[in-house]
Amino acid sequence: MSKNNEKILFSPDITDRERASFEAGIKLGALYHILCGIPISSDEDVIKSVENGIESAISCQPYVKSVKLNLNREKIIGDKSTKFDYDEISGRIIRAELVIKYKTTKIVAKIDWIEDIQYPLMYIEKIE
Amino acid sequence: MSKNNEKILFSPDITDRERASFEAGIKLGALYHILCGIPISSDEDVIKSVENGIESAISCQPYVKSVKLNLNREKIIGDKSTKFDYDEISGRIIRAELVIKYKTTKIVAKIDWIEDIQYPLMYIEKIE
Amino acid sequence: MSKNNEKILFSPDITDRERASFEAGIKLGALYHILCGIPISSDEDVIKSVENGIESAISCQPYVKSVKLNLNREKIIGDKSTKFDYDEISGRIIRAELVIKYKTTKIVAKIDWIEDIQYPLMYIEKIE
Amino acid sequence: MSKNNEKILFSPDITDRERASFEAGIKLGALYHILCGIPISSDEDVIKSVENGIESAISCQPYVKSVKLNLNREKIIGDKSTKFDYDEISGRIIRAELVIKYKTTKIVAKIDWIEDIQYPLMYIEKIE
Repeated sequence: MSKNNEKILFSPDITDRERASFEAGIKLGALYHILCGIPISSDEDVIKSVENGIESAISCQPYVKSVKLNLNREKIIGDKSTKFDYDEISGRIIRAELVIKYKTTKIVAKIDWIEDIQYPLMYIEKIE
Repeated sequence: MSKNNEKILFSPDITDRERASFEAGIKLGALYHILCGIPISSDEDVIKSVENGIESAISCQPYVKSVKLNLNREKIIGDKSTKFDYDEISGRIIRAELVIKYKTTKIVAKIDWIEDIQYPLMYIEKIE
Repeated sequence: MSKNNEKILFSPDITDRERASFEAGIKLGALYHILCGIPISSDEDVIKSVENGIESAISCQPYVKSVKLNLNREKIIGDKSTKFDYDEISGRIIRAELVIKYKTTKIVAKIDWIEDIQYPLMYIEKIE
Repeated sequence: MSKNNEKILFSPDITDRERASFEAGIKLGALYHILCGIPISSDEDVIKSVENGIESAISCQPYVKSVKLNLNREKIIGDKSTKFDYDEISGRIIRAELVIKYKTTKIVAKIDWIEDIQYPLMYIEKIE
């Protein structure tokens, strides 16, 4: 597809800031659903390795300037006392910071578990 | 979280249209990664059933007014001639239309496979 | 691949019962990780629709005679009092029964959440 | 659940070899569906990082003695000439070797793309 075609598909009414917001949403939605269900343990090496792997993957996507995954260690269960003693990634432990750059717009977007609403909220922290 | 807290996390600079764009992106990113890898066959009942199930799931998410999934039948392989003859969902066959409503902003966003760039493009078709 | 090739890859030491056990495991592992993270609500229509969709998908796979998904309604949160009030599928609510048939071996395998070990156990209930 | 309970759920007719086969299947099914849809590029650092992350995750699961993931570099598309020029993981590029140990039974199981049947075959290569 030429750049022209991409322009044809996107509404001409979309501003660069709106486009950047859209792209940030895509990446957080993807990140979240890739992570859900991945086995994890409280071992720091395991956590780091999984974080690095998924960060590398998301970094391949268009307009991603950086992505930092920081799984919540305090909420990861697993002390290896039995063979069933490991956890899996869910919204409760996912924390990430994503920087998107589309043309001159830069967005910092995050995902974090919000206790009050028991919900993994995705939000735009900064746009410029 | 009270509505106030949600406002605290989101940048105050975000317009309703930008927020709606962000939410549209989240849902398409989620939809895509939920679908990837799901087994499918060329049987119309199977396809319909999978489409309905995932549409129902995505419809639970905030600000989703409607979602229509239309897997590309022409690209689904599988004629049951052998036991291995089925396909699985990938970007090549995913087509969806999503309507997001955030406050007074309505967005129609789509995902479609674009042959020229061999890419499952997500785009905002309309915003109002 | 001819049938002969498949035989070449599999160890000749594998009995039909072992092969059936292997196939049952593959399907339960797949089922589980396809389900994890899918949004869900306490609405019976939504639950049924998601169950049907994933059952149809898993039924496409080789040697699957039947698959019955029965998400645990009692553990699904969501009463639509706020826009964030929905749940997503995790091991706590996944319950399924799978029947595999490989040659003359039939296996009934299940996945269920076991409170004592806080674990979504997959097990073979019957083999014949 | 005590060990007794686990015995109650599993059919008493299951041999250790059958149980090991079942566990091998679970892990390969999980591995496959975790991988599907993860973005990837032809950059060796990205590939290695994703492989390491998913290997670490699968290693947390019961009875896994080792797991080696070896994505097929030759089939990964992406040369960064445009922003859309990356790939995502699918059955065509997944290759893995898994070693399962259940009591005295050891299994080497693999997943590989078989061109003849255009299928990502999971098989037991060795059992002892």
